[in-house]
Amino acid sequence: MSQPATPSLRDLEHHDAFLERHIGPNEAEIAHMLKTIGRESLDAMTDAIVPGKIKSPAPLALPDPVSEVEAIAKIRSIANRNQVFRSFIGQGYSGTHTPNVILRNILENPAWYTAYTPYQAEISQGRMEALINFQTMCADLTGMEIANASLLDEGTAAAEAMTLARRSSKSKSNVFFVSSGVHPQTLEVVRTRAEPLGIELVVGDDAKALEIDSFGVLLQYPDTFGRIGDHKALADAVHARNGLVCVAVDLLALTLLTPPGEWGADIVVGNTQRFGVPYGFGGPHAAFMACRDAFKRSMPGRLIGVSVDSEGKPAYRLTLQTREQHIRREKATSNICTAQVLLAVMASMYAVYHGPEGLVRIARRTHRLAAILADALRGAGVTVGEQFFDTLHVTGIDAGELHQRARAVRINLRAIDASSVAIALDETTTREDVIALAGLFGVELVHIDDVDARTGDALPTGLVRDSKFLTHPVFNTHHSEHEILRYMRSLADEDLAMDRTMIPLGSCTMKLNATAEMIPVTWPEFANIHPLAPAEQAQGYKQLIDELEAMLVECTGYDAVSLQPNSGAQGEYAGLLAIRAYHRANGQAQRDICLIPESAHGTNPASAQLCGMQVVVTKCDKDGNVDLDDIRAKAEKYSERLAALMITYPSTHGVFEEDIVAICDAVHQHGGQVYTDGANMNALVGVAKPGKWGSDVSHLNLHKTFCIPHGGGGPGVGPCAVKAHLAPYLPKAHGDDGLHTDGVGNGAMVSAASFGSASILPISWMYITMMGSHGLRRATQVALLNANYVATRLAPHYETLYTGRNGLVAHECILDLRPIKDATGISAEDVAKRLIDFGFHAPTLSFPVAGTLMVEPTESESLHELDRFIDAMIEIREEIRAIEDGRLDREDNPLKHAPHTATQVAAEEWTHAYPRELAAFPLPVLRQQKYWPPVARVDNVYGDKNVFCSCVPINAFEGEIEAFSEPMVS
Amino acid sequence: MSQPATPSLRDLEHHDAFLERHIGPNEAEIAHMLKTIGRESLDAMTDAIVPGKIKSPAPLALPDPVSEVEAIAKIRSIANRNQVFRSFIGQGYSGTHTPNVILRNILENPAWYTAYTPYQAEISQGRMEALINFQTMCADLTGMEIANASLLDEGTAAAEAMTLARRSSKSKSNVFFVSSGVHPQTLEVVRTRAEPLGIELVVGDDAKALEIDSFGVLLQYPDTFGRIGDHKALADAVHARNGLVCVAVDLLALTLLTPPGEWGADIVVGNTQRFGVPYGFGGPHAAFMACRDAFKRSMPGRLIGVSVDSEGKPAYRLTLQTREQHIRREKATSNICTAQVLLAVMASMYAVYHGPEGLVRIARRTHRLAAILADALRGAGVTVGEQFFDTLHVTGIDAGELHQRARAVRINLRAIDASSVAIALDETTTREDVIALAGLFGVELVHIDDVDARTGDALPTGLVRDSKFLTHPVFNTHHSEHEILRYMRSLADEDLAMDRTMIPLGSCTMKLNATAEMIPVTWPEFANIHPLAPAEQAQGYKQLIDELEAMLVECTGYDAVSLQPNSGAQGEYAGLLAIRAYHRANGQAQRDICLIPESAHGTNPASAQLCGMQVVVTKCDKDGNVDLDDIRAKAEKYSERLAALMITYPSTHGVFEEDIVAICDAVHQHGGQVYTDGANMNALVGVAKPGKWGSDVSHLNLHKTFCIPHGGGGPGVGPCAVKAHLAPYLPKAHGDDGLHTDGVGNGAMVSAASFGSASILPISWMYITMMGSHGLRRATQVALLNANYVATRLAPHYETLYTGRNGLVAHECILDLRPIKDATGISAEDVAKRLIDFGFHAPTLSFPVAGTLMVEPTESESLHELDRFIDAMIEIREEIRAIEDGRLDREDNPLKHAPHTATQVAAEEWTHAYPRELAAFPLPVLRQQKYWPPVARVDNVYGDKNVFCSCVPINAFEGEIEAFSEPMVS
Repeated sequence: MSQPATPSLRDLEHHDAFLERHIGPNEAEIAHMLKTIGRESLDAMTDAIVPGKIKSPAPLALPDPVSEVEAIAKIRSIANRNQVFRSFIGQGYSGTHTPNVILRNILENPAWYTAYTPYQAEISQGRMEALINFQTMCADLTGMEIANASLLDEGTAAAEAMTLARRSSKSKSNVFFVSSGVHPQTLEVVRTRAEPLGIELVVGDDAKALEIDSFGVLLQYPDTFGRIGDHKALADAVHARNGLVCVAVDLLALTLLTPPGEWGADIVVGNTQRFGVPYGFGGPHAAFMACRDAFKRSMPGRLIGVSVDSEGKPAYRLTLQTREQHIRREKATSNICTAQVLLAVMASMYAVYHGPEGLVRIARRTHRLAAILADALRGAGVTVGEQFFDTLHVTGIDAGELHQRARAVRINLRAIDASSVAIALDETTTREDVIALAGLFGVELVHIDDVDARTGDALPTGLVRDSKFLTHPVFNTHHSEHEILRYMRSLADEDLAMDRTMIPLGSCTMKLNATAEMIPVTWPEFANIHPLAPAEQAQGYKQLIDELEAMLVECTGYDAVSLQPNSGAQGEYAGLLAIRAYHRANGQAQRDICLIPESAHGTNPASAQLCGMQVVVTKCDKDGNVDLDDIRAKAEKYSERLAALMITYPSTHGVFEEDIVAICDAVHQHGGQVYTDGANMNALVGVAKPGKWGSDVSHLNLHKTFCIPHGGGGPGVGPCAVKAHLAPYLPKAHGDDGLHTDGVGNGAMVSAASFGSASILPISWMYITMMGSHGLRRATQVALLNANYVATRLAPHYETLYTGRNGLVAHECILDLRPIKDATGISAEDVAKRLIDFGFHAPTLSFPVAGTLMVEPTESESLHELDRFIDAMIEIREEIRAIEDGRLDREDNPLKHAPHTATQVAAEEWTHAYPRELAAFPLPVLRQQKYWPPVARVDNVYGDKNVFCSCVPINAFEGEIEAFSEPMVS
Repeated sequence: MSQPATPSLRDLEHHDAFLERHIGPNEAEIAHMLKTIGRESLDAMTDAIVPGKIKSPAPLALPDPVSEVEAIAKIRSIANRNQVFRSFIGQGYSGTHTPNVILRNILENPAWYTAYTPYQAEISQGRMEALINFQTMCADLTGMEIANASLLDEGTAAAEAMTLARRSSKSKSNVFFVSSGVHPQTLEVVRTRAEPLGIELVVGDDAKALEIDSFGVLLQYPDTFGRIGDHKALADAVHARNGLVCVAVDLLALTLLTPPGEWGADIVVGNTQRFGVPYGFGGPHAAFMACRDAFKRSMPGRLIGVSVDSEGKPAYRLTLQTREQHIRREKATSNICTAQVLLAVMASMYAVYHGPEGLVRIARRTHRLAAILADALRGAGVTVGEQFFDTLHVTGIDAGELHQRARAVRINLRAIDASSVAIALDETTTREDVIALAGLFGVELVHIDDVDARTGDALPTGLVRDSKFLTHPVFNTHHSEHEILRYMRSLADEDLAMDRTMIPLGSCTMKLNATAEMIPVTWPEFANIHPLAPAEQAQGYKQLIDELEAMLVECTGYDAVSLQPNSGAQGEYAGLLAIRAYHRANGQAQRDICLIPESAHGTNPASAQLCGMQVVVTKCDKDGNVDLDDIRAKAEKYSERLAALMITYPSTHGVFEEDIVAICDAVHQHGGQVYTDGANMNALVGVAKPGKWGSDVSHLNLHKTFCIPHGGGGPGVGPCAVKAHLAPYLPKAHGDDGLHTDGVGNGAMVSAASFGSASILPISWMYITMMGSHGLRRATQVALLNANYVATRLAPHYETLYTGRNGLVAHECILDLRPIKDATGISAEDVAKRLIDFGFHAPTLSFPVAGTLMVEPTESESLHELDRFIDAMIEIREEIRAIEDGRLDREDNPLKHAPHTATQVAAEEWTHAYPRELAAFPLPVLRQQKYWPPVARVDNVYGDKNVFCSCVPINAFEGEIEAFSEPMVS
C-alpha cells in the first residue's frame, strides 16, 4: 500500500462513516453503475429525473452527518432527561417484565424486526405461526371464536369495533353507547371516528345502556376505575334490541375472570401490551380484535389462516384478504393497513413462555398485592372499591397532596380528580412497592404475609373464570429457556428477512434498519415511561419529539408535524380530518369531494371514506401519469364541493410527473386542498419538498423513508405534516383529563397515545442525525440510481412499464409480466414464487398494475446484492424463454411448481419434466448457500374456503389434514 | 381450569422462576424420568450415586434463588459502583468502538456464543471461516507466514513464544532475553513460566540483547513507552547466534509500520483487543501467535486449515491437531486448551467491516491526534518522545500532581513513576480529548486543524509500511451494514449451536447460557473499565469478584479462590504452581513427582510438565476406576519426591469412585498434595465438596459448571481454589509497578490481567445468584437424572461402558461403539457424523476411551430434547442392525457417508445403495425441520497433508481445488 500524503485530521475523522454503511454501493460501484445507465454523475442523473420546477434550491438545513458513536452519545443524553418513576398509573398500560430471552431474540433480532408483511406466505411461515399463536391467545382468553393478528392500539380497535358493529348489527339505531368506564383515550379515539361517519355517541354509566336504543355498546372489563361489572343482563338487553356488545378487556384479568365470550360479547378488543411489551411512552403495542365467527368476513385487520401447500401439508397464509383496504378501495370499511406484528409476536411469545399456569400466577400475584393494599388502605380509613382485579379507585382524599408525596418518592399514581386517584398494580409490583404505596397513606405495612393470609380475593364470585384457555401444546411446552430459544430460532429460520436477502418491494421500501438506530429503543429511559407520566418526567421524549418534528418539517417543506398517527393510514386519516376541520372552520362544510387518481394506493379512498368524503376517481394516461385535464375538469365540476385531491408523488408507477405544480394550482383554484401521499417520500428527501411546490398536507411513512423496521408487518409511524393554515387542526395530545398536553394541534385524537409509537421514534431521529443533510440527499440519489441500474440491466429481458423523462424511472420500476403471461402462461406470481428458489423475497406483486412486479431496491443494497437479484431475474427469464422455445413444458416447469422444498427435491421419486437440480439450484452459487422454504406453494383457494385461524392441532402436521380443514364454527 | 384455594403471596412470588427456566424437565417430567430409571426421588437417586462419605451434611450456605429481574437489579447496583473515566492508560489495552452490528449480532447472539469448539468440522464451517479470517488478518498484518486461531492473552502468548523458541532454536543457550520495553504484565507472565522450566531470563534495554547469547529474544513493537525500535540489525545478530526473534506487536500500529515479518521476526504475538473488543477490566480478548511456516507443527494453540470434503469441495477443519495437549499428554509442550474464539470472531469481523483502508484510517487518525498532542505538549516545554505511534511518554513532570488533575476531570493516564506518565491514544480519542489532555499541561489548544497542518507524522521514516495487507475479497466486500449483517448471518447459519440443538458433550458440559446472565456483560460499566484503572474506580468489579470468590468457596469447600486464570488449563497450572511453591516454602523442593491416572484429561500431564514436575502414570481398573493400590504403591515408592496426585472427580469415565477419601489419605500420608480436576464439578455442586473430603486444590471451569458460554471455543474462566495452607501461593494481582493490588495470593501471575476474563464474571455471579442454594443442588441432581435417563433408555441399544454403585452413572455416560465397530465396521465417528443428519451435534468422541461416545445432557435439556436425541440414537442403532442383517451394505450405507448435504440428496444422480430419503430424512420429524450441513464429511488426512491456513481464494469454491491444495510455503 503506497502512502500518499497524510490526509488531514478532518478527513480522517470520517464523518461520512455512517452514510457509507447505510448506502450499499461505494464510490467505485456508483461510478460503474452510472456508466451502466449512461449518466455522468449522481447530480446529472437527478437532474434528468426530477422536474426542475420542484427541485429544492438549497440543501436541507440540517447538521452534517455524525458517526454512530456520536449519535448514540447525543441520544444517550436525551434519554437521560427522561426520569423513570415507579408507575401505578394503569389506564390501559401496565408494567411488565419482557422476558430477557424474548427481548434479545425477538425485539433486538434483525431476523424478526427486518421482516416484511407476510404476503409471500411461503417465506413467512415462522412469523405467521407466531401470529396464529397470538390469534389463539386472544380468542382463548376472551372466550371468542376468532381473533385477528393485531390492531394498532386499543383506542382504534374500539373505533373499529364500533364500525364493525354498525355494519353487522340489524338495529336501525344510529347511536353507539359508550360506557363512562371506558378508558378516556379510547373514548377520545371513538369520538373522533364517530363524528365524520355521522354516528351519534352517547356516553354514560353502564346502567344507562339499558335505556338507550343503540346499534352497539362499548364496555370496559374491568373498567377504567378498576370495577368489574356483571354485564350478562345488559348484553341480553342489547341483543334483544338487535344491538351488538363490544367489550374492551384486559387480557391478564381474563385469566381469572369469566371471559366476555361467555356472557354475551360480540366483539372484544384490547391491548396486549402487558404481555411483555414495554410502555414505550404509549407505543407501539399490539392491540387486537376478537369476535364471533359470523363477523369474520367483515372484521378489520389482518387474519392468519391455515391452508395447505401443494404437497398437502398445513401452511399458514393471510386469509380473507379481500377484506383489506388495498383491495376494496373506496368500498373499504376500514383504512387499516399496518398491523403491529413485531409486538404481537412478542406478546404471543410471552404467553408461550409463561403458559396458562404462569399467566394465572402473574395475575393472582398482582391481584393478591392489590387486595393486600386495599385492606391496608381501608384500615387507614381510606375508601377503596370493593371488587377489582388490579386497580384501586381511592376516593375521598386530597389527591393533589397525595400526588406530591408520591412523586417525592418517585412514584406516579393516576390522576383522576381533586379527591380521588387510581392505583394500578401489575406484574412488576413487589411487596416493597405495596409497602411504599401504603406508606403514602400513612399506613405502616409490616407483616404483609399475615395480611395476605387474612385477606380474601376481591373478585366477584359470579365472575370467576372456570373455563380453560391456552390448552394447545405450543403454550404448554416451551417453558425452559432452551426450549423457547430454540422455538423462536426455528420460526425465524423459516422466514426470509433482510438479514439474509434484499427485499425489493416497490412502494414498501425495505431499506437498512441499522443497529445503531435500534439500540436506544430498548433503553429503560425510553422503554419504561408510561404514556401518562407527568410531563416533567418525559423531558427527554419532549426533546426527541420536538427535534424529530423539526427535522421532518425541514425534509418536507411543511410547517408543522404531528407524530401521533401510528401508521401511514392513520396519518392519512389525520391529514384528511385536518382538511375537513379547516373547511368547516371556514364555513365550507359542504366541501366533501375527494379526487383520487385511479392509480392511487387503496388506503387513499378508504381514508377519504372514513372522513365522510365522497371519492371521485380521476383518470391516468397510458404511462401511468395522472390526467391533468381530467383533474381540472373534475375540480371545476365539483368546484363548490371540492375538499381535496389526494395524489402520490412520485407516482405509484414510479414516475416524477411533470405536471405536479399545475395540478396543485388547479385544485387550489377551486378551493380544494392538496394531499400528497408521502409513501414515496424516500425518492424526494434532499431533492424536493412537497410543502414547497404547492401541497398542503402529507403523511409520511417513517418505516419507508426513515428506517423504522417493518417488523414483519408493523409497527408503523405515520406522521402527518401540514402547512401552517392546517396546523391548528392536527391531532391534539392528551389533556382534558389532567393529562399532559404537548400536541401540536387542537384537532381530534386519532390514536390512543399522544405520540403514537413514541418508543421507536429514536430510530428515525438517529437515522437523520447520522445521515445529515448531504447523507439524506445522497440516499435519495442512490435509491434512484439503484432502481435505474436494475431497470437498465433488466431492460433486455423484461419490459419496464412506465418511465419518466429521458427514459429513466424514479426509485422503483415496474416489470410488465403480462406479455409473458400471454405468451407462455407464466404469471407474475409464478415469477415471484420462483424467486424464492433463488433465495429472494419477491418484489411487489400486481400493484399498482395487475400482472406486474414492482422492484424497489433502495439505496441500502450493494451492487453485489443488486447483481445477485438481476442474475436471478435473468435466469428466470431464460427459463421462460425455454418454455417459449418448447425446451420446458408449459405446465410442468420449475416456475409453475415453485417454490421447491427440500423434501420435494430429495424425494425418492421425481416426477417432474424438468431436472431436480434445476428445481433446487438454478444458479451454481445456490449450492454454496441456499434458503429452503418450509412449505411449497400455498393453496389460496383452499384457505379462503376453509377458514381456520387458530393453532393447528399437532396431528395435522403428521398428515391428518382433516384436523383443521373444517370451517371453524362453534 | 378449576380454581383451587388461592395460593399465598409468597408462593405466587415464585422465587424458583429462574431455576425452572434453567432446568429443562419440569416436575411431571422429572417424575416420569425417575420412574424410567427406577428411583423414588431425586434425593434417593442422589444417595444411590454419591458415596455417603463425601456427601455434604448441609445445604450450601448461599441465599435463596432470586428472579431474573431481581438479580439484574442487584448487579445493576454493583455495576453502578464502577466509574468509567476516559482512559489513556494503554499498556497493551486500547479503547475501541465495537461496531454495533457486531455487538448485537455476534457478542449478544446465542448462535455465536452458545457454539462449541469446532471439533465437529461439518457443523462448524461458519465460525471456522471467521477464524481463518482471523488467522489471515494476523498473518497479513504481522507479515508472517502463518497464524493460529487465537491464544488467551498477550502475556501467555509471549510465554508460549518463549517455549516455542526454546524447542525450535538451534542455540544451546538457556537464556531468554526480554526487552525492558515489553509491557510489565507480559514480563510477569513470562517470568512465571520461565522459572519452573529452568529458563534463565535476562531483562534489559534492546541494545543489551546484542551482548547476550540467548536462544531467543522478546521485543515489543512499538514498545511499552511508545518507542518504535528499528530491530533489523538486532534480529540479524540474534539469528547469527542461532537464536530466534519473538516480537509482541500492536496490530493497529502495523497498518502503518513495517511489519516484523519484514525485518526478521520468527514469532510474533499480540492482542487483538483493540479490534472492537471492549476493555472488560482485562479480558477476555483474543491474543494470537504468528510465526514462520517452519514452526507450524510446534506452534501452540488451535489452527484452522482448509481441506476438502467427500464431494471435493473446500472445507475448513482444525488442522494439525496432534499438536494439541489432549493428544500429546505428558509429551505436550503447552497446556493450552481453550482459545478465545468468540473474541477472535469479533476481532476478525472488525477487520472485515473496516477493511484495510478503514483500519489505516483509524490508525492514521489516532496517530495524527498523538502527533498534535505531542506538538502541543512540547510547546509547553514538556519532554515527549520523538517517534511514536499512539503513545506519548511524558517525562520530567510531577506525575502525582498530574494524575490528580487528570482524575478531577475523569481522565486516567498511565502511571509510570514519580516524574513521568504515558498517554496512549486510540480509536475512541476525539479532538475534544486531545484538547482536554493538553489542558492538563496548561496548554490551550484552540486551532487544532492548524496544528494538524503544520505537524508532521512521528513515525520513523525507515519503518513506514509499504506492503499490502488484507487483500482477500472478504476484507474488501462486506463494508455496508447490510453486507456484513448478511455475511455474519450466513456464517452463523452454517453452524449448529445450542440455540438449535442440545450439544450432549461429555466432559465439556454445554448447559444453558441464560440471556439474563449475558445481559450485564455488555453494560458499559463492566465493558469499558481498563484493567489498570485505579482501584477506586473499579469498586463494582471488586464487589463482584469478592462475592463470586465467596460463592465459589462455599460451593467447593475450599478456603480461597483466584479468578485470575482465564482457562481451565491456566487454573490447573496456577494450582500446581501453588503446590510447588508450598513445597519449596517448606524446604521440600525435591518434591517433583506428580501422579496422574491413565484416565486423566490430557491437560493434567501437560500442566504438570509445565510446572517442572515429572509425571508418573497410575493404573485404572476395567471399570474406569483409579487403582487405589497402584496409587498407594507409587505414593510410597516416590514418598520423598511426591509432589501431588491429580485426579478428576467424578472420574472422566463418569463414575463417583468410592475410594476417593482413602486416595486423599494415601497421598497426604506421603507428604503429597491432592489436586482435584474440577472439570466435573457440575456433578458435585450442592451435593459434595472436594475441599471437605481431603482435596487441597482444584481448578473450576466456569463455562462448564457456572454457565460461561463456550463461545465456539472460548472464552474460558478457570478459577483456582485452594485450602488455606496454599492460599498464599495463589496468583498475585498487578502491584509492583504502581498498579493496583487486590489479588488473593502472592504467587506468580499466570495471566496478563489480574482477574483474567473479568468482564464475563457477571455471568457466573448471575447464575449462582438466580439459582440459589437449592437451585444449584437441584441442577446437579437433574444433571444426574438426565444422564441416567439417557443411559437407561439407550441400554437396550448400546453398551454403557462404566457405571458406579447400583448400576447408575454420574452426570455423563459412555456408549461403547467398539463391539459395533468389530461387528459392522461402523465407527464411533460414523455415528457422530450420522447424528448431524438428524440435526445433532455429536457427543464427545473417543474421550476418555477411544471408540466411544460420551454423552452429557446437562440439567438444561428438557425431556422433549432428550427424547429427540434418544430417538435419533435408536434409529441409528436400527441402521447398524440393518448392516448386521445385510439389509444395508457394509460400505455403502448412510452411516459411512454421513453427513449428507442438500446438494447430494438433490443431485440428479443418486448412486448409493440406500435411498436418498433415508439419507436426508431418517425420521419423519426431520421433514418439518432440518439442518443441512454446508459440507459433506471432511477429509482429515488431506487437510493434514496439505496445510493451508488462510482465506481460501474464491475460485476454490468454484471448483478449482488446486488454488489451495499446495502446502503453503513462501
